[in-house]
Amino acid sequence: MSVTFPKGFRASGVSAGISSVEGKLDLALVENIGPLDACAGVFTANRFCAAPVQWSRKAVQDGHIKAVVLNSGGANACTGNAGYEQSEKTAQAVAEVIKCEQEKVAVCSTGLIGELLPLQNVLEGVSNAYVALDTTERSGMNAAHAIMTTDTKPKTVALEGNGYRIGGMVKGSGMIAPQLATMLCVITTDAVVSAGALQSSLMQGVEYSFNRIDVDGCMSTNDTVLLLASGASGVEPDMDEFQALVQQACSQLSRQIIGDGEGASHDICISVRNATSEDAALACARAVAASNLLKCAIYGEDPNWGRVVSSLGTVPQAVAPYDPMQVDVEINGVKVCESGQPSQPRSLVNMTDRLVQINIDLHAGTRQAEVWTDDLTHEYVHINADYES
Amino acid sequence: MSVTFPKGFRASGVSAGISSVEGKLDLALVENIGPLDACAGVFTANRFCAAPVQWSRKAVQDGHIKAVVLNSGGANACTGNAGYEQSEKTAQAVAEVIKCEQEKVAVCSTGLIGELLPLQNVLEGVSNAYVALDTTERSGMNAAHAIMTTDTKPKTVALEGNGYRIGGMVKGSGMIAPQLATMLCVITTDAVVSAGALQSSLMQGVEYSFNRIDVDGCMSTNDTVLLLASGASGVEPDMDEFQALVQQACSQLSRQIIGDGEGASHDICISVRNATSEDAALACARAVAASNLLKCAIYGEDPNWGRVVSSLGTVPQAVAPYDPMQVDVEINGVKVCESGQPSQPRSLVNMTDRLVQINIDLHAGTRQAEVWTDDLTHEYVHINADYES
Repeated sequence: MSVTFPKGFRASGVSAGISSVEGKLDLALVENIGPLDACAGVFTANRFCAAPVQWSRKAVQDGHIKAVVLNSGGANACTGNAGYEQSEKTAQAVAEVIKCEQEKVAVCSTGLIGELLPLQNVLEGVSNAYVALDTTERSGMNAAHAIMTTDTKPKTVALEGNGYRIGGMVKGSGMIAPQLATMLCVITTDAVVSAGALQSSLMQGVEYSFNRIDVDGCMSTNDTVLLLASGASGVEPDMDEFQALVQQACSQLSRQIIGDGEGASHDICISVRNATSEDAALACARAVAASNLLKCAIYGEDPNWGRVVSSLGTVPQAVAPYDPMQVDVEINGVKVCESGQPSQPRSLVNMTDRLVQINIDLHAGTRQAEVWTDDLTHEYVHINADYES
Repeated sequence: MSVTFPKGFRASGVSAGISSVEGKLDLALVENIGPLDACAGVFTANRFCAAPVQWSRKAVQDGHIKAVVLNSGGANACTGNAGYEQSEKTAQAVAEVIKCEQEKVAVCSTGLIGELLPLQNVLEGVSNAYVALDTTERSGMNAAHAIMTTDTKPKTVALEGNGYRIGGMVKGSGMIAPQLATMLCVITTDAVVSAGALQSSLMQGVEYSFNRIDVDGCMSTNDTVLLLASGASGVEPDMDEFQALVQQACSQLSRQIIGDGEGASHDICISVRNATSEDAALACARAVAASNLLKCAIYGEDPNWGRVVSSLGTVPQAVAPYDPMQVDVEINGVKVCESGQPSQPRSLVNMTDRLVQINIDLHAGTRQAEVWTDDLTHEYVHINADYES
């Protein structure tokens, strides 16, 4: 499925020798063969944003993109002017083969920060990727494979609207934190939608998906989410339905990131209810999701609600008004804390499933928010202590 | 050494059966035998503050404390009115034996959140601890042992002023994060100092020590730092010298917490220089110190400066104005990043020592700040996945 599910898109994934893993697919190309070339983009808020982000942010600005080239094996971040030139030359190479202006090519990179890419390999990879471009499911899956780093599986989505389709792929497993886009994500549609409408759909979709997950509290330098419309279905969608489908695509992809979080053995949903505002609920959910101690406890299958409330207690009263003596905490359906005190025995909580649902009731208002995170495991430490090697 | 180093203090540590570890010293008593009973205190900013914190905050308010009773094996946090009554009854029991008002007894607890203490054991422990009270070094060390939880060693300090002394003990290894006090800490002095002067010395001392360490980003519900003056030396100190010594005591104790951080194999000092303000420098240092990815990399002895700058990049421009293209990063004396780009090869960095010194130069102003943290290791995950059992 992936990005080739809608009509009007060709894709490919090739091995270009950028990754240190011999033979790994590490360069993906996605071409919008039209008739439209509308595009929207959301990028990392990190001030050390990578060269490809700087390039793509400009390229996307006018709402028109013909192709996206993505590589794993190197982030091309903190690489100065030389890095920016590499992104530009990569765009140029793609523009030459697919015959468009270089400003119509977005570039995405992911991998180690602080090193230039092996440019010759990238440029040769672009030639090979162009030859391999195809509209098949297989070529879409190759693209989804080519952007993986510490991901253990490709992450894709395929949704049907009324006469049109939405497809997508994402990579991301570590260095995932909210308040930004995510790692690299390309969503495609054959609906007839203007760039402006795409941008507002994407921004709302991202806000309630990629911006509400947190694997490890670390914001990347390279996060990019692109939404491309080919118009090949000829269908102008009902915008409410389209918005809902974009939201669904973003949510499914972001959930797949959590499901494949580095080393994770549990997906954790933190739901905060009855807050005075959505922002207050979100601040509380984010604080709990960021607790290393809670994430270790869940790895140990310990429903340690003390680590839930101690994290909740770090959110200032001005940000989230609530009374600690009113707070209830429910873990996998068992109310372990009621009115800030022990309630049901924690031994009743079954923690063996992959999913852990933590419901926090603030009893302070009527608004709610949800944040997804992962547990913190030996495997996370292993992956990130040894990533360089 | 510990709290009995200055004249005018007796201490003890006994096994009261509060801890789940058979025979572990788990109840400490510190008595100020005067002639003064001046006291200062700093407590956690966590909104779910524990019953003993609620009790002690009131007790310390008037600047006079005769004794501190501390237990490991249970935090008595999130235990409602019943928990508060336990703290009160513990203070009462101490007050009876040392013959003072119960409002002159501070209470500190540490351990699992969300469970009441075995009160009978605590009260019997108080009786035994009273009998064991002594001014010897050994009794001071017993007290330092009795407050340990996941700590692997007791943490104490002993400093000499001009005619007076300062001693202290602290416990803390996990659930350590800045913007608050620390875990449990009692500092003693035989100098003649008023409660008001003690409080200002302690607040300044804490700000540049316990408030600038971060083991795991998790703020505790029970943090308490107390400074008690017996006046037994008869010496009224030069207040500049006294302030400097209190600062030194706090710094030495907080460094010992980092040196014994849960599972840690490296102590990491993040020093941010040439910021526009101390607050800006501090915000940058805290952001870097909070990065799980960096902490894993350092465990893997990888001088991964990309994870330094990507954390730095999450600090908003409004909080810390600087230009990413000006930033230098030096790890253990090797400038691995200059002007936001790769400089010296990271292979030159020796990471085998316990201490890792990361110097960040923002080239934006003249102010600086320093934050200490630990690496994130398999042992940290192990300790915190299994702490309940």
